[in-house]
Amino acid sequence: DRPLTVIAGPCQLESADHAQMIAGAMAEACAAVGAQFIFKGSYDKANRTSLSGKRGLGIAEGLKILQGVRAAFGCPVLTDIHDADQAREAAAVVDVIQIPAFLCRQTDLLLAAGQTGCVINIKKGQFLAPWDMANVAEKVASTGNQKILLTERGVSFGYNALVADMRSLPIMARTGYPVIMDATHSVQQPGGQGGSTGGQREFAPAMARAAVSLGIAGVFIETHEAPDTAPSDGPNMVPLDQMPALLRVLMAIDAVAKADPVRV
Amino acid sequence: DRPLTVIAGPCQLESADHAQMIAGAMAEACAAVGAQFIFKGSYDKANRTSLSGKRGLGIAEGLKILQGVRAAFGCPVLTDIHDADQAREAAAVVDVIQIPAFLCRQTDLLLAAGQTGCVINIKKGQFLAPWDMANVAEKVASTGNQKILLTERGVSFGYNALVADMRSLPIMARTGYPVIMDATHSVQQPGGQGGSTGGQREFAPAMARAAVSLGIAGVFIETHEAPDTAPSDGPNMVPLDQMPALLRVLMAIDAVAKADPVRV
Amino acid sequence: DRPLTVIAGPCQLESADHAQMIAGAMAEACAAVGAQFIFKGSYDKANRTSLSGKRGLGIAEGLKILQGVRAAFGCPVLTDIHDADQAREAAAVVDVIQIPAFLCRQTDLLLAAGQTGCVINIKKGQFLAPWDMANVAEKVASTGNQKILLTERGVSFGYNALVADMRSLPIMARTGYPVIMDATHSVQQPGGQGGSTGGQREFAPAMARAAVSLGIAGVFIETHEAPDTAPSDGPNMVPLDQMPALLRVLMAIDAVAKADPVRV
Amino acid sequence: DRPLTVIAGPCQLESADHAQMIAGAMAEACAAVGAQFIFKGSYDKANRTSLSGKRGLGIAEGLKILQGVRAAFGCPVLTDIHDADQAREAAAVVDVIQIPAFLCRQTDLLLAAGQTGCVINIKKGQFLAPWDMANVAEKVASTGNQKILLTERGVSFGYNALVADMRSLPIMARTGYPVIMDATHSVQQPGGQGGSTGGQREFAPAMARAAVSLGIAGVFIETHEAPDTAPSDGPNMVPLDQMPALLRVLMAIDAVAKADPVRV
Repeated sequence: DRPLTVIAGPCQLESADHAQMIAGAMAEACAAVGAQFIFKGSYDKANRTSLSGKRGLGIAEGLKILQGVRAAFGCPVLTDIHDADQAREAAAVVDVIQIPAFLCRQTDLLLAAGQTGCVINIKKGQFLAPWDMANVAEKVASTGNQKILLTERGVSFGYNALVADMRSLPIMARTGYPVIMDATHSVQQPGGQGGSTGGQREFAPAMARAAVSLGIAGVFIETHEAPDTAPSDGPNMVPLDQMPALLRVLMAIDAVAKADPVRV
Repeated sequence: DRPLTVIAGPCQLESADHAQMIAGAMAEACAAVGAQFIFKGSYDKANRTSLSGKRGLGIAEGLKILQGVRAAFGCPVLTDIHDADQAREAAAVVDVIQIPAFLCRQTDLLLAAGQTGCVINIKKGQFLAPWDMANVAEKVASTGNQKILLTERGVSFGYNALVADMRSLPIMARTGYPVIMDATHSVQQPGGQGGSTGGQREFAPAMARAAVSLGIAGVFIETHEAPDTAPSDGPNMVPLDQMPALLRVLMAIDAVAKADPVRV
Repeated sequence: DRPLTVIAGPCQLESADHAQMIAGAMAEACAAVGAQFIFKGSYDKANRTSLSGKRGLGIAEGLKILQGVRAAFGCPVLTDIHDADQAREAAAVVDVIQIPAFLCRQTDLLLAAGQTGCVINIKKGQFLAPWDMANVAEKVASTGNQKILLTERGVSFGYNALVADMRSLPIMARTGYPVIMDATHSVQQPGGQGGSTGGQREFAPAMARAAVSLGIAGVFIETHEAPDTAPSDGPNMVPLDQMPALLRVLMAIDAVAKADPVRV
Repeated sequence: DRPLTVIAGPCQLESADHAQMIAGAMAEACAAVGAQFIFKGSYDKANRTSLSGKRGLGIAEGLKILQGVRAAFGCPVLTDIHDADQAREAAAVVDVIQIPAFLCRQTDLLLAAGQTGCVINIKKGQFLAPWDMANVAEKVASTGNQKILLTERGVSFGYNALVADMRSLPIMARTGYPVIMDATHSVQQPGGQGGSTGGQREFAPAMARAAVSLGIAGVFIETHEAPDTAPSDGPNMVPLDQMPALLRVLMAIDAVAKADPVRV
């Protein structure tokens, strides 16, 4: 098995400079530990808790920024789409198209994404059992595109709370597709702050470590130089300056885990 | 408070004749007990568990059938949309536009629906706390359209299961918008049959009774003359021939409940 | 089916006078609406959230008070036991022995209770599925005592929260034993106040109404003249002065429900 | 931090020979990897799903077997008690007294256990939030006995299912007491086989690895040479012959984890 892949970036793209700064720091941190790096950034937050939440820069501006990141650092880039219409436009720029968790059962979106031929990262819905992701992946695979990633990001656990079930990682791995752990969204507290979503960023490293110890393909971690002022998901993002140390321990666990992988 | 409203119909529209048959039976059953009747039918099931599930007749054909039902029985008609683009087309025909539960946080869809001026029935997401529906309703209301209904249809409870929390009804009622109980989707077992969603139709009447006893505005009940052969949601639909008796007891409970409503 | 039985009283017995005052008010309120009344009071709270929570008067004093209530009002009395050793002592005084929810799988306690020949009210554990109560009841029935009541009091739903699943009532009724809805404990928020358990007493009437609409045998409602100063479970008890109005609407719903019971 | 402690043994004690066989194999496996070993065995299963489940050998016979194991292998031994009366008798033999999860709020049991001066391992109830274990530990600590272990064993997640929340480990560690992961009970499916409890033993290694990656004090793993024929908890026990390999990977992860512990 290959060393851990790290999908990282801010929740939403803020500006070209900001994206370059984070991408640069992460590319360096990943290179230092031998992890493959994929830059992540969203151009639109289409499902904010409330109308007053910032939506983002829009698809045209966002894709330009992602293109710039790839040109500057040579890393693959990932963004999420919210409508079948956006698939082709995004695919012209990005390497990985991501399907948001709430939308993971929307057939037309999955088909449109699959048809682009990009790698498709599907977030497991907060309302979905891990074994049900086989049906979801099948929708994408029906387009002839088998470049699929499946991501755990927590499951509903009472109100305004998620829990990350570590069993879901080996269960989703039974599909044969690489499995990713989203360490930051799985510590969200959806709607937990009334008009916005709370989070427990202090537990994101624990989520990443636990998942990596099972021998997964990659981790997804949103990061920001100042999470408390980020326009979205600040409460659950990992501060950028903590990423190098976190990656070091994750790579050490990854080496042990992949020498003796969990078999289920 | 006005007597109970009953939103009923098949899960998906199958043909003009089938819709007329069900609408006719339901209109008669509702008239017999003094309930207001709204006919419900879907032209597209955009998020089936698996790709092999039947999608439906499509928007053009579906809206024609709904128009026919309204013409024949003089009842309001409701359908659900899955994309902002469909809002205007649907609004030309239907009285009530419904927002599916998985999509209840998609801002553009909510805004497009609101802008039509139709009544908007928003299903509460399986991943959402009832108090978070205030933010959702606010997205629609921001368009100037306050004709909003909020529907409980169960919340995630472990894997492949939902639970209907009766507290959610008075909690959502605090918004001031009428609250509906979806008695059939709240007994779904999502993904519970592997490639399709299971259900416990035997509990749908219990869900409806419990909710009506709190003095809610309406119930949503999918029905079919032969649920076991229905193209979708058969396991949780109420057989059409059981509806008259169910409506009789619901109206009796409704009368008692509205004489002395729950206050929270 | 017989009219609704009402099991009511304070969470813990405070004094003979206090018990008589509550029992008197409840006996009168039940008589006024034609409900059968069972007085409930605990002599020991053996599983408080924290050590600083008040335990109660003890078994000797508590049983004396219960005896006094029965003598004064002629109503059956109920208390809960926490240890097999207490069964016989309690049985000398009370009509109904209650098994606490946390202890509902403790075989020796169930057998000892059953052997007394008293009516045994078993609270369903917060960790238990309703169909699993058949095994629990069977432990009591193995003693030859079939006078069993099964009580729903909410099931774990994330942390510090419960949800009352109305399906559990008809599911438990399949055993053939009468089913009771505990309307006040099902709105507890276990541990929700740090050192003590919180509650949402405002929803207790809704829980009772919903359950009664299904045609159950009885409701369990803790009540107090000043819940905010009660030594335990204050946050979820119904104020005593609200009980007469609540009973009126419950009896009205009960009449409708039992004329046309839910069949599952 | 010290290397991982391994609490292991069969679910219930079957005979002196059987206990010696398992203890011998585990002592050897633990010595081979440098883990501290504590032998675990129950003399009574006081809360079986149904009455027909085997109870065990009883306290006298069970304690004699545990004494024999300690004499033969020089390892500490652990057993669980179910009643305050048993504390003193068990304490005469065992090093660690365990409080079962269902009983973790029973004040008298906690006090009696604490008063023995033994190490007390408290299993977190399936109905309890991890932060609520501080109140539970405090009950034991009030006796002057601070030798407390806190064990995660899964939390209720819908019906007949548990989920292991990895956040609970660092949360419970905030108390200052060592934290243990019960890798086998956390994959139980309570009541999941009708008259008995099911399990997913294939996930127990994943639970252990994930937990150890956070730098916990120990793991609890029930094991049996032939789990499918074990008198209880067979579905979730790890086969004895798989333990050496599992311990090797756990110790490798433990070394990495403790070099760089999670801080919350």
